[in-house]
Amino acid sequence: MHRPYVQEAEIEIDPTQLEAFKAAITVQIETAVRDEPGVLALYAVCEAIDPVRVRVFQIYQDSDAYRSHLETAHFKHYKAMTEKMVGSLKLLQTTPIMLGAKPG
Amino acid sequence: MHRPYVQEAEIEIDPTQLEAFKAAITVQIETAVRDEPGVLALYAVCEAIDPVRVRVFQIYQDSDAYRSHLETAHFKHYKAMTEKMVGSLKLLQTTPIMLGAKPG
Repeated sequence: MHRPYVQEAEIEIDPTQLEAFKAAITVQIETAVRDEPGVLALYAVCEAIDPVRVRVFQIYQDSDAYRSHLETAHFKHYKAMTEKMVGSLKLLQTTPIMLGAKPG
Repeated sequence: MHRPYVQEAEIEIDPTQLEAFKAAITVQIETAVRDEPGVLALYAVCEAIDPVRVRVFQIYQDSDAYRSHLETAHFKHYKAMTEKMVGSLKLLQTTPIMLGAKPG
């Protein structure tokens, strides 16, 4: 059964490493969306009033696609690269109500 | 200049009206994404551990598209319908780092 799996990460970044973190997550998102069929969307944003607070809204085809994402070489590389940049990480699981988007 | 405008709403819903709220926001999202060229994506989700906490991740073509969205009849109808369902509403402005999505 393909029920989209949606979660949001709330990440606090070391201010001195914010630009390096942005570069690393940009590469990670480009790679995952391009190479993983089950990664539907990854949106990384900074909070406007406090840019070291980052949110990543994530849509996977289903929970299997999320689990498989965690095992990819590119995700593991991103995690290793950013480990010392991240002060705290909170993962918020969700239940979709309505996911509406323009055809790309 | 067309720079995507991205924000997230955090909304707490009266538990007795959660199903009515879900129905109202579903119609509002379907209509906005279909009828407004500048509404690129509206994703409404419940927090899994506390479903009365709703988040709406919103991507507009630019800030003008967001302002124009606020003036539409369907948005005003949704706001009026849900006014008494919503306990609190927080809007979080953001700066995009990377918005990655599969072609729809």
